[in-house]
Amino acid sequence: MRELFEPASVAVIGASVEGNKVGNIILGNIIESGFQGPLYPINPRYQEVMGLKCYPRVSDVPGPVEMAVVVVPAKFVLQVMEECGQKGVKAAIVISAGFKEVGLEGAKLERQLGGIAHRYGMRVLGPNCLGLVNTHHRMNATFAREGPREGNIAISSQSGAICVVVLDWAANINIGFSKFISVGNKLDIDEGHLLEYLREDPHTKVIGMYIEGTDRGREFLRQAELTTKVKPVIALKAGRTSSGAKAASSHTGAMSGSDKVYDAAMRQAGVVRVGDIEDMFDLLQAFSTMPLPDGEGVAIITNAGGLGVMAADACSDYGLTLASFEPSTIERLKEKLPPAASLYNPIDVVGDADAERYDHAIRTVMDDPNVACVLALLAPTDLVDISSVAGTLATFAGSSPKPIVTSFVGGKEMAAPIDMLKAAGIPNYPSPERGIKVLAAMAEHRRSLVRKGSRAVEPTEADHEAVREVISSVRSQGRLQLSESEGKSILKAYGISTPREGTAKDLPAALELAASIGYPVVMKVESPDIAHKTDVGGVVLNIDDPQELERSYQVMLSKVREKMPKALITGVSIQSMVKGREVIVGMVRDDQFGPVITFGLGGIFVEIMKDVTQGIAPLDRDDVERMIRSIRAYPMLTGARGRRPGDITALAEIILKISQMSMEFPELEELEMNPVMVGDEGKGVTAVDALVTIKGEKQ
Amino acid sequence: MRELFEPASVAVIGASVEGNKVGNIILGNIIESGFQGPLYPINPRYQEVMGLKCYPRVSDVPGPVEMAVVVVPAKFVLQVMEECGQKGVKAAIVISAGFKEVGLEGAKLERQLGGIAHRYGMRVLGPNCLGLVNTHHRMNATFAREGPREGNIAISSQSGAICVVVLDWAANINIGFSKFISVGNKLDIDEGHLLEYLREDPHTKVIGMYIEGTDRGREFLRQAELTTKVKPVIALKAGRTSSGAKAASSHTGAMSGSDKVYDAAMRQAGVVRVGDIEDMFDLLQAFSTMPLPDGEGVAIITNAGGLGVMAADACSDYGLTLASFEPSTIERLKEKLPPAASLYNPIDVVGDADAERYDHAIRTVMDDPNVACVLALLAPTDLVDISSVAGTLATFAGSSPKPIVTSFVGGKEMAAPIDMLKAAGIPNYPSPERGIKVLAAMAEHRRSLVRKGSRAVEPTEADHEAVREVISSVRSQGRLQLSESEGKSILKAYGISTPREGTAKDLPAALELAASIGYPVVMKVESPDIAHKTDVGGVVLNIDDPQELERSYQVMLSKVREKMPKALITGVSIQSMVKGREVIVGMVRDDQFGPVITFGLGGIFVEIMKDVTQGIAPLDRDDVERMIRSIRAYPMLTGARGRRPGDITALAEIILKISQMSMEFPELEELEMNPVMVGDEGKGVTAVDALVTIKGEKQ
Repeated sequence: MRELFEPASVAVIGASVEGNKVGNIILGNIIESGFQGPLYPINPRYQEVMGLKCYPRVSDVPGPVEMAVVVVPAKFVLQVMEECGQKGVKAAIVISAGFKEVGLEGAKLERQLGGIAHRYGMRVLGPNCLGLVNTHHRMNATFAREGPREGNIAISSQSGAICVVVLDWAANINIGFSKFISVGNKLDIDEGHLLEYLREDPHTKVIGMYIEGTDRGREFLRQAELTTKVKPVIALKAGRTSSGAKAASSHTGAMSGSDKVYDAAMRQAGVVRVGDIEDMFDLLQAFSTMPLPDGEGVAIITNAGGLGVMAADACSDYGLTLASFEPSTIERLKEKLPPAASLYNPIDVVGDADAERYDHAIRTVMDDPNVACVLALLAPTDLVDISSVAGTLATFAGSSPKPIVTSFVGGKEMAAPIDMLKAAGIPNYPSPERGIKVLAAMAEHRRSLVRKGSRAVEPTEADHEAVREVISSVRSQGRLQLSESEGKSILKAYGISTPREGTAKDLPAALELAASIGYPVVMKVESPDIAHKTDVGGVVLNIDDPQELERSYQVMLSKVREKMPKALITGVSIQSMVKGREVIVGMVRDDQFGPVITFGLGGIFVEIMKDVTQGIAPLDRDDVERMIRSIRAYPMLTGARGRRPGDITALAEIILKISQMSMEFPELEELEMNPVMVGDEGKGVTAVDALVTIKGEKQ
Repeated sequence: MRELFEPASVAVIGASVEGNKVGNIILGNIIESGFQGPLYPINPRYQEVMGLKCYPRVSDVPGPVEMAVVVVPAKFVLQVMEECGQKGVKAAIVISAGFKEVGLEGAKLERQLGGIAHRYGMRVLGPNCLGLVNTHHRMNATFAREGPREGNIAISSQSGAICVVVLDWAANINIGFSKFISVGNKLDIDEGHLLEYLREDPHTKVIGMYIEGTDRGREFLRQAELTTKVKPVIALKAGRTSSGAKAASSHTGAMSGSDKVYDAAMRQAGVVRVGDIEDMFDLLQAFSTMPLPDGEGVAIITNAGGLGVMAADACSDYGLTLASFEPSTIERLKEKLPPAASLYNPIDVVGDADAERYDHAIRTVMDDPNVACVLALLAPTDLVDISSVAGTLATFAGSSPKPIVTSFVGGKEMAAPIDMLKAAGIPNYPSPERGIKVLAAMAEHRRSLVRKGSRAVEPTEADHEAVREVISSVRSQGRLQLSESEGKSILKAYGISTPREGTAKDLPAALELAASIGYPVVMKVESPDIAHKTDVGGVVLNIDDPQELERSYQVMLSKVREKMPKALITGVSIQSMVKGREVIVGMVRDDQFGPVITFGLGGIFVEIMKDVTQGIAPLDRDDVERMIRSIRAYPMLTGARGRRPGDITALAEIILKISQMSMEFPELEELEMNPVMVGDEGKGVTAVDALVTIKGEKQ
């Protein structure tokens, strides 16, 4: 990657003298950005381009070429790349379009391109991309109209158009970039590689990514987890919904994974996922210019009560706390604020507030230990000198130990003062809500930094041999679906308890079995001909004693015989009757992210209320606890409605075991325990049912 | 109100020659706005102000004075208003602050001000307000720095600062106003009165309101319901959350009602409630300049796939449909779009699209009957001439039969083209999501126009006398809480079925009673000493026959005697065992809005999942059906999980009856039927329990 981002020498293959050609713009951008190393235009048609000697082929260049920018038409790309490989080029940016995004032919061409790159060990950015900028290496290898200023934001985008949108936005707001990467079709380099590189990049303070789809979701998750421990990652994942996803796949041919899984992955990795591009801009601006808050409390300062109310509303919406001030803070505020001012949060410095009043209020609350960040609001009242307040606020840029953002709300009168704030690097947002939303995201990132301790979980001692035997036995029978008892034997191999149970051929045997299992029990009819036992009266719950068992046995058999006279009845199964709250724990292996663990309360909660949560294995204790707490029905587990609290510790264990199992046995394709009965605190949890599907033998 | 908004003559009491005084600015604004009638400055200290003859008191004015603007300090306001009354002034705008918002003394002064106004029949706007503008009467009676342009938006605001914010925003975006009203403390005129007036105002196309609290919530609801049938009402209600509400009450002293009730009221009235001031601006702009969509389908046109994906995502989020084009539309698109273009929604006209391509695509989709509205997106790609596209889009302003909004996403390069769009009156939003959100709100408003047919509901024939008797009997016993059987007798008076039931002193009587009620039954112990019957084994459900009743009777009594040996047992009650799905229907009388009807599924759904909905009585069938459908657990009522559908028609009836009852008996303070059992379709619903509280006698 070093050769891609900081090449010593660059060739532009397809450089052109024609002003509107990409091969002309890119060469011009590289020159204009002040690139220091040797730069070689390559084009058999010219002797010289932009005052530089032009070579027919890259192989004709006398010195070494570390990186090549390829802008020739798609049909020439393979040949050109072959030559690059022979020349010893280490990295290439393939700008050219006409690959995967145009259909099957293009996809084939792209695979061939990948083969060449692999053979020569070249890294490839693109194809079908806008290029790459590294401001600190003074290299703008894009064909964007306007190059970015130097700064500390790194951007990657799967859409070239979003790149230009971001550049144009940044030009307007005085924001600069460290790296700017258009990933295109991501043949080789994708977001995972970029995170790995940008994490270590000393010039990058915050990373923003526009993603439409990923091919290596799991690797992205892993790299994101490591990166967010060091710096914030903000992601806009488009194609969220079915209609959006359709547009995404016609756009770059990316397969969008299920959005819920992306959501779980990003949350688990500590990535700040934003819903739209404005949110992305808002956050980049704040993370780029401001320090992180060291807590949750916000101080709001306003010259208009109404704006303060809106900001306070937004605090509740976004989970930020209105700081309670120390008495000394109130005293100090009182010194310089007029009697009509409100000294409590939100601080109302009143409509005629001048710059000095704002300054005093801000400095005072900054000193309060309960204040972690500040939002300064301003309405263009008749009596306020907006520019002078903006000038005062600008003095906090760079020096403030706590983040401060502003919201000057209005239009015409605000334009010039807001430009002053922009120039100084104080983020200003057009509504109080957006200011609060940004501060809340900063506080959340800080929380995730603090939270991330060790991720090591003591693995359960499992009987791997037993699991392997079950899997190979099922496979040898040509099945992929395990029977309930086979499924349960896998659970048992991981120390997950299942109800005591057995089968009996007749009533005396059933009575004996029930006595050994212990009442209360459940009795089910056993018949290869009956799929839905409940429908034919073939299940009796909660049998308390031998008398009831005897009676139920007779009733059940007569009902079943009446409803299905031709069914072969081989006996009954007797199961210990397990009590507790029903939950579901499941695992599905996602193509992108690997094992996805699902958890929710059973029955209506999952089916009707869609109250489930997901996590990507391997999970640690912290992940699992957050999953359990995140469902809306969580109070059902903690003892709502007069019940005793459930055994949440044991529930967490069972989820961790499924996570571990899914990592240790890639053969397991799908697993669902429905229901798992969660007993009262200390009473453990029991998997009553198990549905397991395995993969076929490796081909 | 005519005299307030269109006075023939105006006096400014407290007019001043000093440039920075409010009494100077207002007089200047009235003059400058071109007010046509006689204008009288009043101030004993001057002979002349701004070239107009100044009078010492309003009583000294020779001609009639229809409206007075009062800007004297609070302590002089009563005397001045007294003089206005004597002079025959019909309406007054009291700008002066120092009333309710400053505490108890101020509140007293405000009450006295109200008394004077009432005595003379004067309407009062304010006190503590910024004033009022009627652009079509050429009267700007505010002290805002900048007067609004003429236009079709009416604004009312409970915060003066929000007024200036809106004015400054509008000045920047080329948007004009019909009326601009700062309501201040709302001593006399509030949002309800304004809606009544603005509904009929031919110059007003859309109404925007910033509300912190209401004193006459019910009247607001009534006026809003009438108004939204004629024109859209957009409301920003601040003080939504507990922390916000705290700031609101210190701001203007308004008591904020429970936000959930406001939400229900606005939804029911068809008011578009927005979450923040940017949403308010976004919607005002679109409703002001564009026609309503005649359906749900949106066509998206973009020169950048990424932006199209974002817009498509937003469609799902906001419930707008991506239109499916007619084959003829696709054909026509194909004629002028390049092969690389995507002809399906979102239409990608590709990065090098020129104005003509946009024009062709827009005109084509506008002709498609499946398209109700259009969103045009643009990214500042290198190859697009942004200004020329903006120029083309501008031609659709005013003439387009379907709404079209744009989202030119970027910053620096976008500024000038966006100004062109502003000038033309094409709403432009900085992100695709905001464009979609606006179109979705317009579609929603149209749906609510279409939906609103007759609101008449055939009232139930009820035995009012029986209800009155119960209430007076309970009152005569000095109680406010009705017993279960008293509560049920009120329900029965409205034809709400309750389980058949009765009490029996001994087993033979119980058997006889059960036989007459019909099995299955529920048996409960009757004892004045036992409050929690279930806890002592005093309730047996689901008794199927006499044998079981006999056995249960013995077991129950022995259990109860064992647990509470000293309790006096007077017998048992036998109740028909009602089956069905448990729901809750309740009514609470809100200070602001009157009877609030609550509905939700029973048990965990209400308690844990908070899955309830509210409506304000009187409800019509449409309101009730929407309430029932709006809960997340609604599928539980329609036959989810293999059950038969519930009797939703009968459920709607029972909610309508509670609505009617709450209107007919204002004495009923609170009523809860928990549970109501909803049987299968056609089987009716039964209120199993009733908890009723009445108001004390009128003092």
